[in-house]
Amino acid sequence: MPKSLQKINLAEKLALFSDHWSPRILGELNGQQVKVVKFQGEFVWHRHEAEDELFLVVSGAFRMDYRDGQGGEQAMELGEGELLIVPRGMEHRPVAHAEVEVLLFEPAGTLNTGNVRGILTTDDPQRL
Amino acid sequence: MPKSLQKINLAEKLALFSDHWSPRILGELNGQQVKVVKFQGEFVWHRHEAEDELFLVVSGAFRMDYRDGQGGEQAMELGEGELLIVPRGMEHRPVAHAEVEVLLFEPAGTLNTGNVRGILTTDDPQRL
Repeated sequence: MPKSLQKINLAEKLALFSDHWSPRILGELNGQQVKVVKFQGEFVWHRHEAEDELFLVVSGAFRMDYRDGQGGEQAMELGEGELLIVPRGMEHRPVAHAEVEVLLFEPAGTLNTGNVRGILTTDDPQRL
Repeated sequence: MPKSLQKINLAEKLALFSDHWSPRILGELNGQQVKVVKFQGEFVWHRHEAEDELFLVVSGAFRMDYRDGQGGEQAMELGEGELLIVPRGMEHRPVAHAEVEVLLFEPAGTLNTGNVRGILTTDDPQRL
């Protein structure tokens, strides 16, 4: 049991980095991690086989492209104060025309690019 | 697999109720639930034996009183955009001088008053 708790200020943590697509870990609870990330541009299509993923927009806006059960391509626009849960197994791709700051909530160890390894993969996210 | 995703707008959901201390469920992922709640006044001291609990301030401010491993009483002030993770087993009590809107993230089934049953206990939180 910790002797004192530490609060986490989202704006302060987000000011500590400027690169895109590389999540940082803010905290952990119940086997899950809270992360922050900045999106700008178009990410890769991917899915997480065993992890549901929550996206909450802290500032800005982005579009989540996704493929439904029939493979049809759909899109959801998300603004500040809006959240989306992408269930395990669903192909998705965030797209941001301008920079957007996002809070993520997902199981510890979730890989940002899921089943698709590439230059945007962050293997060992930094803890802030 | 759902055919389409539903986004959740925090402000819209928070406008749907006005009572205090009674969490509403917004969504579920990986066995965890996302909830919103409004605090005003002083809650009861309690702990959750097996659940870590995340509090993120959406609007307003509140104070989290807690007891450290030695039983000493401490307090943490939290404002908008700040989050706190209270680990399982730690006694805590939110106190809000004015109304504050809070997002909770915790395991499905977590009881708001933890080990202390009383008039503030919400046994079956409503889904919004």
